[in-house]
Amino acid sequence: MERGSNAGDPQGHAAHDLIARIFTCSAEVAAQVMRRGRVCAYAGNATILRQGDWLSTAFLLLFGRAQALLYSADGQMVLLHEYNPGDLFGALGELEPVRQEADVRALEDARALVLEAAEFALLAQQHGCISLALSRMLLKRLRKTTERMYERAAISAMGRVYAELLRQARACADLTIRPAPVVAELALRVATTRETASRAVNGLERRGIIRRSPDALVIVAPRRLEALIM
Amino acid sequence: MERGSNAGDPQGHAAHDLIARIFTCSAEVAAQVMRRGRVCAYAGNATILRQGDWLSTAFLLLFGRAQALLYSADGQMVLLHEYNPGDLFGALGELEPVRQEADVRALEDARALVLEAAEFALLAQQHGCISLALSRMLLKRLRKTTERMYERAAISAMGRVYAELLRQARACADLTIRPAPVVAELALRVATTRETASRAVNGLERRGIIRRSPDALVIVAPRRLEALIM
Repeated sequence: MERGSNAGDPQGHAAHDLIARIFTCSAEVAAQVMRRGRVCAYAGNATILRQGDWLSTAFLLLFGRAQALLYSADGQMVLLHEYNPGDLFGALGELEPVRQEADVRALEDARALVLEAAEFALLAQQHGCISLALSRMLLKRLRKTTERMYERAAISAMGRVYAELLRQARACADLTIRPAPVVAELALRVATTRETASRAVNGLERRGIIRRSPDALVIVAPRRLEALIM
Repeated sequence: MERGSNAGDPQGHAAHDLIARIFTCSAEVAAQVMRRGRVCAYAGNATILRQGDWLSTAFLLLFGRAQALLYSADGQMVLLHEYNPGDLFGALGELEPVRQEADVRALEDARALVLEAAEFALLAQQHGCISLALSRMLLKRLRKTTERMYERAAISAMGRVYAELLRQARACADLTIRPAPVVAELALRVATTRETASRAVNGLERRGIIRRSPDALVIVAPRRLEALIM
C-alpha cells in the first residue's frame, strides 16, 4: 500500500470539491471529512484490500477505478462490485472490525481517502448529508448486486454476455462500444469463462448482429440481440 | 393486499415501540413515522409485492416474516432476501418510482407500515437516526447478499446445504435445530433443488454426522460436517 499525504497535494483541491459533491455538503463539511482521513495512492493493478483481512477503515475512492473480486472454488474470478470515484468501501458502518469479503484491486492509478471506521461513523452521525449519501450509495450497490445475482440464476452464460454488450452499447452513442470491450473483462463481469464469452462474441459477428473493428464494437441488430437473451 | 388502519389497532402501541427501537429514536419521532404511514396486514403466504411492479412506497415490516423471491429461467425459486420485523423494503431512497426487483411474500401473518417513498426520504433527511438506521440495514443486507453470491460461486450445492445446516445449528442450543428444517426451505435458501438438498441431508444421516427425530435435527459431528463444505 502506498501512502501519500494531504500536504502539498496538487489534487487536494479537486478531492475537496469531489467530497462536497459526493455528500452534497458544504465546503466546511468537506474540509472536515478531508482532515479526518489521509489520502493514499495506489498504482494500477495494486491490491488495496485483501479478502479475509480484519478491517477497521473506510475507503472513499477519489480518483481512478477499482474492483472487488472473489475467487471461486475452481479458481475462476468473480466480480462482486465495481467502484468509481465517489464510491465507499471497506468498514463503513460497523463499530467492530469486519472481515474484508473480497480482494479490492485498483484498475488504474487510483487515490482514496482512508478514514477510521469509527471516525466515519461519527461524521455520518453529525452530518445528515453524509448518512443520506451513504444510504443512497448502498441502495444502488444492493440493487446492482441483486441484479447480478438474478442474472446469474436466470440467464445462460451466453445470454449474460449478450445482455452486457447491450448494456454497454446503450450507454454509448450509436450503439458503438469504443474502445471495443476486452473479452476477459466481459467474462469477468458476467461470471463466465473467457472461452464462453469469446464464443458468444464470435457467434454474434458471424450472424451479422454485431460488427467489430480494431477500436470499436457496433451493435447492428439490437432487436435480434435482445431476443437472444435467455 | 389487505389494508388495515391505525385507528383502534390493538398492536398500535407495540408498533410504536418497535419503530422507536428500530431507529433508536425518541417516542415523538416514532409517532411522527407512524402518522406518515398506514399499517397494512397480510395473511401468511400472501404476495406483498410483485416483481416488475412500479413502486413508490416503502415498507417497514412490523410483525411476521417475509421473503423476496425470484424465479430463474428453469422455474426454480431463488431466495434474494429475508425480512424480519424492523426490516425495510420497497422504494427506499429513490425519488423516481422504481421497478420492484422480486416478489415479496409473507411467510406468516404479517404487518407492515407503508409509507410514500418521498415521505420516507423526508423523514430520513430530517432525522439522522433514521438515515443511520437505514444505512446500517442496507450494509447488513449487502453483506448477506454478497455472502450468498460468493457461496453460490465458490461452494458446491451439497456444500451449501452443509454450511446452512451448520449456520442454523450454531444459532441454537446444543447444535440442535428445532423444529427440524424443512428440506424445501433449505433448498431455497442455498439455491438448489429439493432433490439435492434431500440427498445431502440423507447422506449426512447415513454417515452418522447428523441425527434426525420427528421434531429436531442434531448435528452430532460438527467438525466432520465442516470438513465436508467445499
